[in-house]
Amino acid sequence: MASECLDALLIYLRKARDQGLLREDLSPENATRLLQATLSGLFHDWLRDPEAFSLYKYGTQLVDIQLRLFERDSASS
Amino acid sequence: MASECLDALLIYLRKARDQGLLREDLSPENATRLLQATLSGLFHDWLRDPEAFSLYKYGTQLVDIQLRLFERDSASS
Repeated sequence: MASECLDALLIYLRKARDQGLLREDLSPENATRLLQATLSGLFHDWLRDPEAFSLYKYGTQLVDIQLRLFERDSASS
Repeated sequence: MASECLDALLIYLRKARDQGLLREDLSPENATRLLQATLSGLFHDWLRDPEAFSLYKYGTQLVDIQLRLFERDSASS
């Protein structure tokens, strides 16, 4: 993924940390790396077979789930 | 990713759910999809530039972080 995209993700996730939204055991840097891998996997899988799934529908769901796992206040039990 | 790999991941994550290890708000199916996308992104990024990072070292760290986010008892605050 282009470094300017990574930089943008990191800026957003640092803001989330600063606002107390990010889990305390997850650094903005690691959250960025994880989200980058998730997005990269989604895009590559879709490009390999665009008919296999809807990038918009399926991708949005998956990114939502990943972001929820990043949240500080999201109940884990 | 090959469907037999996905099936294996799903079996493991269902066992984790059955043992109460998985967050209650994360289904084994969604955890599998997320882990599959993360792994796929890691592999694709590494294949595109194998010198950029160590798949073993960096990949292991990233998968560990992803799995920790799946855990029920992992403190989120």
